Parts: sequence; C-alpha cells; structure tokens
Amino acid sequence: MFAVEVSDQVMIAHSFRGEVFGQAQALHGATLVIRAAFLADALDKNGIVADIGRAHAALKAALDPLNFRNLDELEVFKGVNTTTEALARYVFDRLADATRAGELGREPREIKAIRVIVSESPRARAWYEAPV
Amino acid sequence: MFAVEVSDQVMIAHSFRGEVFGQAQALHGATLVIRAAFLADALDKNGIVADIGRAHAALKAALDPLNFRNLDELEVFKGVNTTTEALARYVFDRLADATRAGELGREPREIKAIRVIVSESPRARAWYEAPV
Amino acid sequence: MFAVEVSDQVMIAHSFRGEVFGQAQALHGATLVIRAAFLADALDKNGIVADIGRAHAALKAALDPLNFRNLDELEVFKGVNTTTEALARYVFDRLADATRAGELGREPREIKAIRVIVSESPRARAWYEAPV
Amino acid sequence: MFAVEVSDQVMIAHSFRGEVFGQAQALHGATLVIRAAFLADALDKNGIVADIGRAHAALKAALDPLNFRNLDELEVFKGVNTTTEALARYVFDRLADATRAGELGREPREIKAIRVIVSESPRARAWYEAPV
Amino acid sequence: MFAVEVSDQVMIAHSFRGEVFGQAQALHGATLVIRAAFLADALDKNGIVADIGRAHAALKAALDPLNFRNLDELEVFKGVNTTTEALARYVFDRLADATRAGELGREPREIKAIRVIVSESPRARAWYEAPV
Amino acid sequence: MFAVEVSDQVMIAHSFRGEVFGQAQALHGATLVIRAAFLADALDKNGIVADIGRAHAALKAALDPLNFRNLDELEVFKGVNTTTEALARYVFDRLADATRAGELGREPREIKAIRVIVSESPRARAWYEAPV
Repeated sequence: MFAVEVSDQVMIAHSFRGEVFGQAQALHGATLVIRAAFLADALDKNGIVADIGRAHAALKAALDPLNFRNLDELEVFKGVNTTTEALARYVFDRLADATRAGELGREPREIKAIRVIVSESPRARAWYEAPV
Repeated sequence: MFAVEVSDQVMIAHSFRGEVFGQAQALHGATLVIRAAFLADALDKNGIVADIGRAHAALKAALDPLNFRNLDELEVFKGVNTTTEALARYVFDRLADATRAGELGREPREIKAIRVIVSESPRARAWYEAPV
Repeated sequence: MFAVEVSDQVMIAHSFRGEVFGQAQALHGATLVIRAAFLADALDKNGIVADIGRAHAALKAALDPLNFRNLDELEVFKGVNTTTEALARYVFDRLADATRAGELGREPREIKAIRVIVSESPRARAWYEAPV
Repeated sequence: MFAVEVSDQVMIAHSFRGEVFGQAQALHGATLVIRAAFLADALDKNGIVADIGRAHAALKAALDPLNFRNLDELEVFKGVNTTTEALARYVFDRLADATRAGELGREPREIKAIRVIVSESPRARAWYEAPV
Repeated sequence: MFAVEVSDQVMIAHSFRGEVFGQAQALHGATLVIRAAFLADALDKNGIVADIGRAHAALKAALDPLNFRNLDELEVFKGVNTTTEALARYVFDRLADATRAGELGREPREIKAIRVIVSESPRARAWYEAPV
Repeated sequence: MFAVEVSDQVMIAHSFRGEVFGQAQALHGATLVIRAAFLADALDKNGIVADIGRAHAALKAALDPLNFRNLDELEVFKGVNTTTEALARYVFDRLADATRAGELGREPREIKAIRVIVSESPRARAWYEAPV
C-alpha cells in the first residue's frame, strides 16, 4: 500500500456540551494541525499516489470554512460537539467528496482510503480513516 | 475507524542481557515518550472515542510505576529485557485492563483496539497494537 | 550564561481589534505552547539554575488564568490585544514576580533574566526576554 | 502486532518529468527523513522485533547509494520519477532483501511486514507498506 | 526585547567547491526550513512587533527566487558557496531591505534586529543575526 | 553574528543528591539530545563558520564518554550532580578545548562563542553559552 500525506493548519474557537468535557465546556480555542493521507494500491504513470499540489489544495479547501471561525456558530455543526474526532471526520468527508469528484487528479476508484489526523496539541490528537 | 491518542513521558534507567544489545548491556537510561491511541468504530453521543481526561489519567497511571525508576529492580520485569517493544506491550496491558474496567468512560466493548508507541529517541521507537 | 527552560501549553479563544489583523479580527482560538527560560551566571550548590519542579509550577500558575478561557472576557486584558507578543510579556511578568518572591527556590538576584517563547502554530511564534 | 522503527536521512537532487509536477520539473533537491518500521507478531527471546543496531545499519546501507547524489543520474532510476512514493518503495525493496537475507538478525519469516515513511518537508510525506 | 518569528521552506539543489565539503561537492539538494525573527524594544499600538501577515509575505518573497532552483545556476550566487550560513545571510539581507522599505508595516527604525535560522536537516542548522 | 549548530544524542543513567530533586534522587535515566552551536563574526573563505563534519565529530567525541553509561560511576563527575545544566557545561568545556586545539578546522580565535543546549525531554532543557 502506498500513501501520500499533506499537512495544513487552522485556528478555531469552540465550546463543548457535556459534563465529560470539564473546563472545555467554556469557550476556548485551538490550533489544529491536520494531516491528510491518501492511500492507493499502486502508483500512477507519473509515479505518484496523487498530485501533491491538488492534495494540498483539496485540504486547504476543506479547512477554509473553519479557519479563524467560532465553530459554535457554523450551521454545519449545529447540535454537534466539534471534538477533534468529529473534525477529523468532517475533513475526511470533504476530502472523500473531492476525491470522488476527480479533484485529486486521479481516477477516483484508485484512491482506496483516506486518513485524517488532527492534532490539537503536542499531547493529544485524533484521527478518522475509512475507504473512499 | 476513529482514534484518539494521548501522550506522556517517563525517565527510566535499565540494562539489557544479551550480546545483541552491545553497549546497551551496561546500565543506562532513557526518556521515553509514550503515545497511547484508543480505536473505535463509532463516536459516542458526546462525539468522542473516549474521555480524553480519563485517557490521560489512565496513561499516567500505567506509567507511574516506571517513572524515575531503575527497571532492573522492578519485580514485574524480573527475567525480562525491558526493551522499547516490551515496554509498549506493558503499557498496552495496563491500558487494556483500564479499558475493560470501564475507566475510559466508555462501554469497554466499543473500544476495539489500543496502540501504544514508545519513542526512546528521535531516531528510534517501537509499538504494540492489538484488539482489547 | 546558564539557562533552564520548561514548557507547558494552554488552549484559548480571543479576537483582535485593528485592520492589520485581517481574518483574526473574528473570534478564533489557539493552542499556545509556552517555553519559559530562566538565566543565571552560575549554578547553585545543587548544580542547577533553579528547581525545575518549581519552575514548572510557576509556569503552570502563570498560565492557569488563561487556560480554556476566552481572553476577550478577562479583566486583565481589557483594551489590550492579546497577541502572541503580549501574552509572552504577560507570562514574563508573572514569572518575574514569582522569581522576586523567591518561588523558584533560588536567591532572586541570582536569576538574571527570563525569556518566554509563545508558539501559536508550527509556523509562528513570539517571545519576550528581559532582566528580572 | 509489534514494531520497531529506526530513522535516518539523506540529501538528494532530482527533477521530475510530467506537467503534473509544475515547478518541480526543474532540478531541485530535498532533505529526506526516512523512517523504516519492521513488524512482527511476537518478540524474540531477547524481547525485540529485531536488532536495532542491525536495523539502523540496513537502513543506512539502503540509503547510501542515494545520499549526496543527483538521482537523475543513477542507473537504477532510469525512466522513473523519483517521487517520495517511489523512493519509499525503493527503500522498502532494499530492506525486504536485507530481511530475507537474515541481515536483521532474526528468522526472516518472523518479520511480517515493513513500512517505510519518507518525509520531504514538514508538510509532505509518503509511505509504502507491504508484507516481506 | 520582543520578537516575532515566522517560518517557511524551500527545496533547492546545489553543490559546493572546496575539499572541506567532502561528499557535498557533488550536486545534491536540501529541504531548507527558514525561521525569520524580527526584534523590537517595544510593541506598537496594536500590540505587535510587526504585521505577521506581512512578515510571512516578506519571507516568502525573499525565498521565492530560491525555491525549486539549482542555486549553482543563479547569478546572485556566482563564485559563492551557498552554504546554510550564506543562505541565512542572503535571506537576512532581503528581509533587512524589506524592513527598511517599510514593508513590515512598522516604522523601520523600530525593528532593531533580524535573526534568520536555516535548518537543513533535523541534525544541522545555521543562522545569521544582525541589527537592521 | 553567524552560527552553525549540530545535534547528537546520548542515553545515560544517573541520580541526584539533594532534597530539591525529589523523585529524581533515585537512579533513573534520560535520552539527552544535545545541540552545539559555534558562533563567529564572519564566514571563512569557504563560506562556513566551521567544517560541519568536524563539528559533528567534535560533538560525538565530547559525548562518547557519556553514552550508555551510569554517570554516577564516572570519575569526572565525582561529587557533582550531573544536572542538565552541568552536562551542558561539561560538553561546552570539551568543545571549547577542541576549538582551541584547531579541531574545528578554523583559526580558534575566529570562533567567538559556543552554545550547548541539552534537552532531557520535550518539556525541559538547559543550556550553557560562553566565549571560547
């Protein structure tokens, strides 16, 4: 299995609902560093999993609605805790859509899976990985 | 598959038995940075794999018997080389117990697997991953 | 010149006033990783610049009022942009107070200077350094 | 599953053929940081996946033909784009050969798989993983 | 003293003249991660050393002539070894010019000094620091 | 001011004497990552502060007596706490000697100062800097 992974970052504010979140129920924020990996069984004729420039662009497009925003105010997250896990899934869904739309510059069915890792600090991160 | 991963560290002394270890047969030490990931098929109603505060606490509890210790003197490691691989397994076993005891704050059977990565230096690390 | 440096982190929300801040005028947030260094001309009889446990505690005490907070709502920052630079200065002031109060476990006048580095992302950081 | 992973680096020059590579069609270069992981179901009698000294040596031997070279001039890469993905595969093949030749100091069939991660910058990396 | 520091990266090819460079006399390459810090005695009315957006832009402008290039072919480096030290100086000179031209968005004489750190690998870096 | 910095690492065991060290009075250990910087006002005719190969060799020679050792047993540290600060000074002294002996491949008086940073964990480090 081959993979290529690109990275970007966003700065967001949000709060959580639920006693389990303790202090994080208050409005606070995070610098999120996101790594998105695209997996494939074989390289294409150029010797790549996907065009890394397009992969960076797809990740940036997935993140733009979040950057410098208070996630509590975004319609898409109404009634949802924007945990690191949930944000990994959100980014995955955007990237899976982009892949299926051919935006990665490769035959969609040749991208087998996507893994999105979201680091919220040097001590904690979450990820979501699934077939496209 | 979702995952949440927390990190902590310990400073330990130890020595190894076996010619394969060369210089490391002498008493020496290491700063070990440990990352413990909990994997689940789905998020709970709070939008998390597990309570990250409890995950940090479980990891700390697993590491406390090792921190600032000479591992050669610990009963639990009698006759065993405390290699980075073996320590990853040791931490896994503690965290699997904590998970099965419900200490992660989630139905134990919903945590599918645990992966423990132990870095001994910027150039070397080991891990152990298995179903709970 | 000797120095000892400890590190900790906070997750905060805030917004900026001023066109120069562009998108960052909206409420957003950051994971701030803070490194505080204490400088001295000579080591004490124990061979240290300062008690590293006390240094960690002083840094944690300086950061606690910020962690999981919306800085826009804190009285101490009324009318002030809580830029990374300004936060470095804020932490410096707390640590200089702690040093002068003898909380570092060393004769205050033997700590010559303090440097506080605040990283807001892998691509940007700020610092403040001054004599105590 | 257990794994042990070692790391090393090379500095190389190369260029790519194909419009998809944009600016990178010109001769340029990279510092590549390579991490090679060896996976096994069980530890050997010494408590290790493989002799870490031998693992470092095998990785260094795999990388030596690349270090401080213009990859465009190497016979082995004639007609091939030396993408990060392709280099991960190249290193995998060398390490799989070394494993099968017993150079890791462990019964070859007990090493189940090898994963090679090649980072070309803090923002991009690729990997190849397969059974030995 | 306050400082704000931004970071960016380039991928370059080059070779060195002189026996002291050993293997590096051959054409090879590097991923260079550059950190540029601007130092000031005081913050401006917005609470910043300099507009971080402009600082990022100035650094990017300084680096653009180098990225994806073979430095051996650039007129500006004729007869000069493009060592990490020399490149730190090159970037410093561009940033000092930008600062004096007011491009940082702050009164030029209020920026006291600039420090440019160039990392060529996890194990080696160089820097140049001087008054503007 | 120019500088070039190289990095290496050692794994050591030791213990401390003095109540201030708390748990660290017990025998424990650390992975120490050491960064040694050599500072000069000007580059030599090759465009470097010092031969980076010789700098790596000098650092390795300074560290070899420590690697895989219990520092409590070394004659050179009799009656001394081998704190991170003290080890930074120890390495500085070795490198200053090497510099004065011409081992850096540069006129000794042209190396103005040396800075040695010793990281004991991601959360704590110490350094020593002085003129040669």
